[in-house]
Amino acid sequence: MIPHGAHLQIGSLLFEGIDQIDLTGPFEVLSRIPNATYRIYGKTAAPVRDLKGLRLTPDASLADAPPLDVLHVPGGYGQEALMDDAEVLGWIRRQAAGACSIFSVCTGALICGAAGLLKGRRATTHWSAFHLLPLFGAIPVDERVVVDGAWIFAAGVTAGIDGALRLAAELRGDEVAQAIQLHMVYAPEPPFNSGTPETAPAVILEQARRSVRAITAQREQTAQRVAAKLGIAVPAAGAE
Amino acid sequence: MIPHGAHLQIGSLLFEGIDQIDLTGPFEVLSRIPNATYRIYGKTAAPVRDLKGLRLTPDASLADAPPLDVLHVPGGYGQEALMDDAEVLGWIRRQAAGACSIFSVCTGALICGAAGLLKGRRATTHWSAFHLLPLFGAIPVDERVVVDGAWIFAAGVTAGIDGALRLAAELRGDEVAQAIQLHMVYAPEPPFNSGTPETAPAVILEQARRSVRAITAQREQTAQRVAAKLGIAVPAAGAE
Repeated sequence: MIPHGAHLQIGSLLFEGIDQIDLTGPFEVLSRIPNATYRIYGKTAAPVRDLKGLRLTPDASLADAPPLDVLHVPGGYGQEALMDDAEVLGWIRRQAAGACSIFSVCTGALICGAAGLLKGRRATTHWSAFHLLPLFGAIPVDERVVVDGAWIFAAGVTAGIDGALRLAAELRGDEVAQAIQLHMVYAPEPPFNSGTPETAPAVILEQARRSVRAITAQREQTAQRVAAKLGIAVPAAGAE
Repeated sequence: MIPHGAHLQIGSLLFEGIDQIDLTGPFEVLSRIPNATYRIYGKTAAPVRDLKGLRLTPDASLADAPPLDVLHVPGGYGQEALMDDAEVLGWIRRQAAGACSIFSVCTGALICGAAGLLKGRRATTHWSAFHLLPLFGAIPVDERVVVDGAWIFAAGVTAGIDGALRLAAELRGDEVAQAIQLHMVYAPEPPFNSGTPETAPAVILEQARRSVRAITAQREQTAQRVAAKLGIAVPAAGAE
């Protein structure tokens, strides 16, 4: 927990093809952390589209970001285009080096991996990309939220809400996180028990695996190439 | 459940001062409903800011919306400015009249009330505005998601995610909703049990009540004035 007196600079990365709730779920929490400046940073300040078309606009460009205390890296299919993006990866590396907390949501973990930041780290990501974590030297942990030192990893998509509340508690104490949770009326009642590969009906899981097959194959190729470039020993990867 | 063959027009209302996750939580679900066109409509097509500053951009203006099959009305402090807005209220009334589903999230219920649509209806809203529902002739039901005929009401903020999954199931069947839930990895694990007035620690609830006192007083005044205009008999309202 950071002393309440210290003002925090909190920043989220926004990019074309993000899964919007990887950003907007945590936004509801991060924008309510006391004594903090929260901004969203994009490669440029121009609007981008999420993978289903929601238009989101950064507050400023990466170049205009101050040194961040808290760095939030969301995911989504657009993560693929960043895996070789020297500007974005360099920005993440520099910001992560100075941050007291780094918060990865969903396949944001792959971007952090491509930045070379996951070696030896306990981490998680979306279930469809979970088997790729070792390519970046990470130790995959099959939990919804994984805390490893300064790092918080949220698994898929809406896990970012749970992770952001954990982050708020780490930064400002449990009562601050609880107050935000009450504002958000975050007492979830999912109407089905289909939120994980373990609980989803078999037919639904099969369909889902088919629907992510192309992006998963692409992510595997990219991850192997990037991992080789990073000089990480690559174990044989098999799709889950 | 609507026949899969029928294409659906789904629309969300976006306005200045919205609570962004009232829109973006459901977006994750509504944008994945098969054989549907999902668009976000604002008074104009210009970007607006959520109550914490997130910039969101409508796809089109209200005037350019087709007749909707599904109408989604989110909430947030900006709801107050719409309670006398003849253009928005008229649009909601016309769209609701033709829709097969109307989905209200959080204080979006107050906007629907100002449009005269809640008379005799079982409804819910954010806990801080719950006591205002009878002013609009509604029967308040203290549940996270309330279904009344063609209407689905989600209580506060993140309840919109649960409500949207219910809506997806009503529109396209349980399997479609379950597949979307798996994509979203919606198997929540809130780190605290502070999401409702009943479960939050007393000190947190007290703080929260204080922090919404001004907006609640304003909402009470507005609700009484609008209810009088609608000709609804106004019972004595007391803050919760």
